Amino acid sequence: MALKTSRKNNYPEWYQSVIAEADMAENSSSPGCMVIKPWGYGLWERIRDVFDEMIRETGCENCYFPLFIPLSFFQKEAEHVDGFAKEMAVVTHSRLSMKDGKLTPDSKLEEPLIVRPTSEAIIADSFAKWVKSYRDLPIMVNQWANVVRWEMRPRLFLRTREFLWQEGHTVHASAKEAEEETKRMLEAYRELCENTLAMPVLTGRKPEHEKFPGAVDTYCVEAMMQDGKALQAGTSHFLGQNFAKSANIAFINKQNQSEYAYTTSWGVSTRLIGGVIMTHADDEGMVVPPRIAPYQVVIVPVVKNPDDEEAIMAYIRDIRKELSGKMPFGEKIRVKIDSRNRSSVDKFWEWTRKGAPIILEIGKRDADSNNIMVKTRIKLGQPEGKLIMPRGEFVGSVALRLENIQKEMFAKAKTRLDTNIRTDITTPEDFARYFGQSNTWIEEGSTGKVAFVRGKWCADPQTEEILKAMKITIRCIPFDQSHTEGVCLLTGKPATTDVIYARSY
Amino acid sequence: MALKTSRKNNYPEWYQSVIAEADMAENSSSPGCMVIKPWGYGLWERIRDVFDEMIRETGCENCYFPLFIPLSFFQKEAEHVDGFAKEMAVVTHSRLSMKDGKLTPDSKLEEPLIVRPTSEAIIADSFAKWVKSYRDLPIMVNQWANVVRWEMRPRLFLRTREFLWQEGHTVHASAKEAEEETKRMLEAYRELCENTLAMPVLTGRKPEHEKFPGAVDTYCVEAMMQDGKALQAGTSHFLGQNFAKSANIAFINKQNQSEYAYTTSWGVSTRLIGGVIMTHADDEGMVVPPRIAPYQVVIVPVVKNPDDEEAIMAYIRDIRKELSGKMPFGEKIRVKIDSRNRSSVDKFWEWTRKGAPIILEIGKRDADSNNIMVKTRIKLGQPEGKLIMPRGEFVGSVALRLENIQKEMFAKAKTRLDTNIRTDITTPEDFARYFGQSNTWIEEGSTGKVAFVRGKWCADPQTEEILKAMKITIRCIPFDQSHTEGVCLLTGKPATTDVIYARSY
Repeated sequence: MALKTSRKNNYPEWYQSVIAEADMAENSSSPGCMVIKPWGYGLWERIRDVFDEMIRETGCENCYFPLFIPLSFFQKEAEHVDGFAKEMAVVTHSRLSMKDGKLTPDSKLEEPLIVRPTSEAIIADSFAKWVKSYRDLPIMVNQWANVVRWEMRPRLFLRTREFLWQEGHTVHASAKEAEEETKRMLEAYRELCENTLAMPVLTGRKPEHEKFPGAVDTYCVEAMMQDGKALQAGTSHFLGQNFAKSANIAFINKQNQSEYAYTTSWGVSTRLIGGVIMTHADDEGMVVPPRIAPYQVVIVPVVKNPDDEEAIMAYIRDIRKELSGKMPFGEKIRVKIDSRNRSSVDKFWEWTRKGAPIILEIGKRDADSNNIMVKTRIKLGQPEGKLIMPRGEFVGSVALRLENIQKEMFAKAKTRLDTNIRTDITTPEDFARYFGQSNTWIEEGSTGKVAFVRGKWCADPQTEEILKAMKITIRCIPFDQSHTEGVCLLTGKPATTDVIYARSY
Repeated sequence: MALKTSRKNNYPEWYQSVIAEADMAENSSSPGCMVIKPWGYGLWERIRDVFDEMIRETGCENCYFPLFIPLSFFQKEAEHVDGFAKEMAVVTHSRLSMKDGKLTPDSKLEEPLIVRPTSEAIIADSFAKWVKSYRDLPIMVNQWANVVRWEMRPRLFLRTREFLWQEGHTVHASAKEAEEETKRMLEAYRELCENTLAMPVLTGRKPEHEKFPGAVDTYCVEAMMQDGKALQAGTSHFLGQNFAKSANIAFINKQNQSEYAYTTSWGVSTRLIGGVIMTHADDEGMVVPPRIAPYQVVIVPVVKNPDDEEAIMAYIRDIRKELSGKMPFGEKIRVKIDSRNRSSVDKFWEWTRKGAPIILEIGKRDADSNNIMVKTRIKLGQPEGKLIMPRGEFVGSVALRLENIQKEMFAKAKTRLDTNIRTDITTPEDFARYFGQSNTWIEEGSTGKVAFVRGKWCADPQTEEILKAMKITIRCIPFDQSHTEGVCLLTGKPATTDVIYARSY
């Protein structure tokens, strides 16, 4: 049962309807902010648990830093930027009072506070207190937190005024160590995206004009959505001594001299959920990678005669008990029995639209014959539709089945990415013609749609303006450079640097 | 090695020094906000994990609601309260710009936004959209979030402008179901405090003037700190139809009539960590209940001769491997090898001040003789000091040992609570004399200090003023009422209601 809007028909509308029909999130009465509902938040919790473990293994520890940053912390930065203006939420009062029957901000703050858009400034302030000697280094902390950026055109998960993320911040005694950390975390993001979200990514460095302000280098993971647009899925910044100098993070080195430290920061956010949707969902709704599914197996009882209910439920509880020992991905399986007072058909479609990896429908006939009606959300090398399977066979294979679904989802997305990076566009004319077309949904197996171009870039400052005019971006400068000569696809000048061009979210 | 300040000497200063020496948190440059450092945040993560599981088992699901609440959401409430004034952070601008070299709030919002002090108002707004029929009920959600209240005298963990908490919000079709939920969650808090934090609590109902605004009934768990003061550790509110009426949460009931729903809310915060400190810490520093210790066993290598290092570390790794299969409290044990480049004596005292439940010191002699030097942070029915133990004996008993530490910590705190509730004060004169004294540290076994009084209260509105003047509070109206007659300890009027009186944090 397809959604009202298909990907082909109207991709942006399809995206919204996937979220609505899967009941993952909704716009709230708080302008530009979203309510993340249990199915959407459950995905975030799984992503958090997986990545938290990965972070911990690198020796990084979780902390929590303040939501508010004093305005003066931004003064120095602002003095170095012409026409500095940032869209940020500013707290100016600390009381709400009734005045003439109208509720009014009261008790003005001496210094306004900024709701953190990211925490480099306030964390650097702590680092400056913590770091004294090279013996204190490295310091590696992370926080799971909410941040606020005053987005003008909010879109659920992709761009909301408030979003959830993790931000890692580290301090090192040498540039080399800090750069290694930056790249280690970039690699962690690649692993998270590919192994956990089944979302293949390209990795590379951002061009100068796309860097995080204050960074020496910004590295990124970039994914291709089903409409060929790019989604920046995560960034890792080598900050050099820039933040150390402005916040005075200095240490006594082994030579007994005072030196500024080297810092890094890296983050991924609830935006990843937008990426998962646009990588995997289809015209029937959401498709959740088993690794992050809040429930990996959902059991829907089919009770046609109330007299059978007890026998059916007993059979279902037995199956759940058998499943409870299974460990797909080395973790306890997550099973849900949906015993709400709704029709089984409604429940089946609800879980289909939510993208639960495996749905079991179990009725009297199944209980009697010791069978299970199995429906995997994606075709798994088997004919479409439901499959009747002996209970033992299903229970015995469930872990492998979930792992195979995960693999197949990744493989499918990887094929889409690999086959939709054009490398044969070598002149500005062909480039302009290619991006003169609109992005549309890339049907499975199709390769002629607008997506990524890997080609030359001359790095001339004027290219920034050309990109803006064409509404195209350089996603990254891939690590694996060809070092061949060619012409810049924007200016026609000789160029050797390979970059990835694409439209983006 | 004792802290500079003892409990006896200066209890408030001792509290600050425990936190500083255990490196759990610190004041930040963001006024009134704290930085929660890894050891403090680790406690919060354990509390979160345990309680999250408890919540889930009740059928409650995690969500995330916006940080900002439009000002108009408070208008209705304000119209019903004389002289409404609330200390809350108010966002009035959405941009920061440079004007004449000065960073300035810019782009004024049409409607100011309040940084959530609690989320009833914004969540009720969502509930109103979600609830249509009795079939949609109950709805039970929870969020782990930061909230902001503009505290004037902040104290780490106890009262900070920003703090972390969980807030549960539920909607029900009947008052009875909602009241049951309120009490179920109060019981969950009692269980959390007692079983997980080893912190015994009293439960009961708040008097009218201590209720959450908008609640029909507020229930609470109250703990006794080591200075005899009370700490409100958690609250659970039965909101009746109050929020449903103002936000229009209505549903079609089974009789096909529209009816307002019944809501509840309940929360505990990082304040619990303050409670854990003031329940368990001693003059040597923090003492962490094993159930929530980020590390339950810390291994400190003692390397006197660098040539021995490899053998010692190999022996330690073996021990860790043996420990890794142990499951105190039914969970994987948390073991840390502290291999930092510091002296083993410094490390030993650092982990003592942090309150790690068990510290192992392992040197060459231990490795050679297959022994372990064990130090439990609290005496465990054994003479004070370190204990040399055969490795096998320690490994085999570690889970039980941790569970026994947890039990002993609870028992000790329970004895303190039970023996420091005065029930023999029956006249206002004796009551005034008792609370005429100052709170001081309750030494173990002592019972004559100022702490709790269980006595009569006449519920007369004037008692509120008397309490304020005496700087005493009614902590709760216990569920187990004696129904005897007596005189109100505040007014001398006849009274039958038993309440708990105490000074409080």
